[in-house]
Amino acid sequence: MATNKLKIVPIGGLGEVGKNMTAIEYGRNILIIDAGGMFPEQDMYGVDLVLPDYTQYLEDKKDWVRGIIVTHGHEDHIGALPYILKEIDVPVYATRLTTGLIEVKLKKNGMEGAVSLNIIEPGKSFNIGGLFDVEAFHVCHSIPDAVGFAIRTPVGMIVHSGDFKFDYTPAWGEPTDFGKLAQLGNEGVLVLLSDSTNATRPGFTPSESTVTEGLTHVFAEAPGRIILATFGSLISRVQQVIGVAAKHGRKVAVEGRSLVESVERAQELGYLDIPSGVLVTPNELKKLPDNKIVIIATGSQGESSAALGRMALGQHRHIKIKRGDTVVLSSRIIPGNEIVVNRAVNRLFQRGANVVGRNSNVHVSGHASQEELKLLLHLIKPKFFMPVHGELQHLHAHAQLAREQGIPAENMNVLENGMIAEFTENSFTVSDRIPGGYLFVDGNRVGDVGRVVLRDREILSQNGFILAVVHISKEDGQVLMRPEIISRGFIFVKESGDLIAQAEDVVMKALPAKKPYDTVRKALSNFVERETGRQPMVLPVIIEE
Amino acid sequence: MATNKLKIVPIGGLGEVGKNMTAIEYGRNILIIDAGGMFPEQDMYGVDLVLPDYTQYLEDKKDWVRGIIVTHGHEDHIGALPYILKEIDVPVYATRLTTGLIEVKLKKNGMEGAVSLNIIEPGKSFNIGGLFDVEAFHVCHSIPDAVGFAIRTPVGMIVHSGDFKFDYTPAWGEPTDFGKLAQLGNEGVLVLLSDSTNATRPGFTPSESTVTEGLTHVFAEAPGRIILATFGSLISRVQQVIGVAAKHGRKVAVEGRSLVESVERAQELGYLDIPSGVLVTPNELKKLPDNKIVIIATGSQGESSAALGRMALGQHRHIKIKRGDTVVLSSRIIPGNEIVVNRAVNRLFQRGANVVGRNSNVHVSGHASQEELKLLLHLIKPKFFMPVHGELQHLHAHAQLAREQGIPAENMNVLENGMIAEFTENSFTVSDRIPGGYLFVDGNRVGDVGRVVLRDREILSQNGFILAVVHISKEDGQVLMRPEIISRGFIFVKESGDLIAQAEDVVMKALPAKKPYDTVRKALSNFVERETGRQPMVLPVIIEE
Repeated sequence: MATNKLKIVPIGGLGEVGKNMTAIEYGRNILIIDAGGMFPEQDMYGVDLVLPDYTQYLEDKKDWVRGIIVTHGHEDHIGALPYILKEIDVPVYATRLTTGLIEVKLKKNGMEGAVSLNIIEPGKSFNIGGLFDVEAFHVCHSIPDAVGFAIRTPVGMIVHSGDFKFDYTPAWGEPTDFGKLAQLGNEGVLVLLSDSTNATRPGFTPSESTVTEGLTHVFAEAPGRIILATFGSLISRVQQVIGVAAKHGRKVAVEGRSLVESVERAQELGYLDIPSGVLVTPNELKKLPDNKIVIIATGSQGESSAALGRMALGQHRHIKIKRGDTVVLSSRIIPGNEIVVNRAVNRLFQRGANVVGRNSNVHVSGHASQEELKLLLHLIKPKFFMPVHGELQHLHAHAQLAREQGIPAENMNVLENGMIAEFTENSFTVSDRIPGGYLFVDGNRVGDVGRVVLRDREILSQNGFILAVVHISKEDGQVLMRPEIISRGFIFVKESGDLIAQAEDVVMKALPAKKPYDTVRKALSNFVERETGRQPMVLPVIIEE
Repeated sequence: MATNKLKIVPIGGLGEVGKNMTAIEYGRNILIIDAGGMFPEQDMYGVDLVLPDYTQYLEDKKDWVRGIIVTHGHEDHIGALPYILKEIDVPVYATRLTTGLIEVKLKKNGMEGAVSLNIIEPGKSFNIGGLFDVEAFHVCHSIPDAVGFAIRTPVGMIVHSGDFKFDYTPAWGEPTDFGKLAQLGNEGVLVLLSDSTNATRPGFTPSESTVTEGLTHVFAEAPGRIILATFGSLISRVQQVIGVAAKHGRKVAVEGRSLVESVERAQELGYLDIPSGVLVTPNELKKLPDNKIVIIATGSQGESSAALGRMALGQHRHIKIKRGDTVVLSSRIIPGNEIVVNRAVNRLFQRGANVVGRNSNVHVSGHASQEELKLLLHLIKPKFFMPVHGELQHLHAHAQLAREQGIPAENMNVLENGMIAEFTENSFTVSDRIPGGYLFVDGNRVGDVGRVVLRDREILSQNGFILAVVHISKEDGQVLMRPEIISRGFIFVKESGDLIAQAEDVVMKALPAKKPYDTVRKALSNFVERETGRQPMVLPVIIEE
């Protein structure tokens, strides 16, 4: 009989719930599932990487953590590992490819060899902290070696689906092991945590093999070079492209550092099946006719710094887009990136390329749709249900779906990040919220950029700033010389000489004053807003002489 | 026999071609079609409105312009009118509702009564400048009173589709007048300019009446209040909501200034059919039970300043979202706004609302899909074809479609904005590009924000700025006192005292120097990048004493 409550805590901000990190807590023992990072959103000015803020949850519990188990090697599940592992020294458990990708990441952060990495295999249980019996099970996703977890605890079994879909014909590895899922269901599952990404999408997600068909069609039609952009981590997609290229007698080169690294690591570990001679260096392409060439490149999000983005801008070192090229966008567009991707596509068309994307079956989602979600519910037959991996709208849709499958409304809860799910063998309640949110990485520092800094960056991004260097007398506060007005990001100064001269007059007239800083700032702000309708940051520099 | 070439010039930047403004030029006569504005994209920092840059094209041709004809009253077709009409004093021709919406816009810009506005009617030709015989024809779109234009010129007839779809059961007014289109085709059309927005979308665009069905379904299910967000200019949608509300015995109130204004103007002009007593003031809602209430609100793009955005944040003056509310997002999400909309949706769910959107048939596109585009080509039977209204990818898809319908490849060209299409009776060629692009409105000024200012705003948005106020001796350049380091948007200063102190040391050590400004800037930039991995703007203020 359990004496402690079992707790499950999704960690993060107002985004996908439990997507990047989830903590399982029992007594003074914590097991963490995944530690991922997010792309910053457009109003997170200057932020390079967003982490779920684990610091507040772990503040006085660092020594309770027994280990981190990782579902798969995508950035949003492993990107926070270098940061959290600097704070807590615990073993990490992951499958072989995932471990390889974690090693690449640790190396980049100068942490090679500093972490206990343990390779796990689906179907083989291992114990963490003497309390949690963990068994990984194979799932299909858009990267090989993805798993979900069955975690046997003193209160009951937790099943976490990980990112998954049911794919009868995956690009890599076995289809879903329905037998294993049914077996877990028969053993009895206390709570299922299941991927809600596509909970609003009816039907089944198409198999990865439909992408092979889509690519085959594109390859058959392309008159010249094929340049295919995808994510560095979409190893299965790379495999598919290489397979289709080999069949069409084309050679494949890889462009873009992150992609080259992932491909090398996947190849070393045996996760890429490359027919001899098909993979070549970018240099070897020069000897080949255009219709024998495939280039897999980074930059599927239109980033001007990645390989495809540089090609679109005509700034790539050795690949110039030309008439006859076919560019294939083989990945989803991350929400918020549509405009940038659109611009890159326009530029590629301008340079004569044909661009093939959404309507050509060259990408499918890696997440289960409604019919698959229902099937998982029926296989696992959980007592309690907790939708995860999705925004609130998706979680609510998933909960609705589960109710329609017969799980009573009182046996499920939709949690937000930072809320605590508490389980006994017979109850699932939600207790108070822990402080949390996001942690921002900017440059090489974590956590020193917060609301105030972001607010200032926002103001500066909108209308820049105006500096007024004012020399005043120590004795009577009189202005000693004409003030110097310096602005950046406010107005095109060369054509605005009058405005600047008037601003100087405004400063002169405002002085002397009791509080020269405040007075100058106010007078200048008012003048500028009246004249231009803009609200730049106004910063007087008062020099007393 | 024509002695001059007929020219067509789409005006704007790297975006939708000819969407916001197109010029027709013959001899020394120019006719302008539409003058619209765009929402700024995310890297157009601080810009409030984007206009096609007509200034360079018109620079020495202002007195050639004979008039502006307007297809419909959406922002992206009328938003630039107040600006261009300040530069050129020409008559504007538009249908009745469009004229009403232009009046609202002119009034906001203090130009009421200063412009010659001429109401036109479909089917009645009018002459502009003695050269262009213009006839508007009714088209279906997501706003009433939308038209396309047949323009008879000395070289031949131009047909411009405007924004259109073929809708057999539109929400407002007549279905498409196929007879008129066929008649124009039989008369003989030199060139067709046709809407390419949905040229990559197969099939037919669903009728506006499917939205009525979708809304009926939502109204039947909603247990409490219904809050529906849409664009201020989607007058037809407002009509549909009022109709469905009346059938369900609900009252409707309107929230949000732009929506209130459009609704009032449309009502005045007789474009809204409102059963007596259905439209109420927000105040009157207080007396009604929740299930009798509909609120139409601005904020479909998640903007935190609009009505729905304020509700999502819990900051709306008198509407508090609560359990039982159904929020309906009845408009497309403009690319680039996905993240903001998603956040608003999450917040609405947090407050207990159910949010209904994409999957509920509560919005349809106002633009023709492939089968409709084909039909227009067959009705108009143009000699030459010039796809417009779409990004390059859509224009190329539309051109492909036209080739499949039998228009020879040599009889069509895909133009970019700023390129000049030249026509004789027997030829369609593209000549050199005119300078153009975008014109930015920021605050109350147009055109004084360009590349340099935007580049500075971008740098400031990423890492803020650091100011180093340095007092040096006029005589020997020695530092006279410890420098003052001021930063904004760079780092959380309270927790970074050490870094600031070190930065002061760096400045001290860098001096004296021949060029103190450059030396201090370089030393400080290097130090900061090394320590933080960030590149804020560094601005020394050197005070010589």
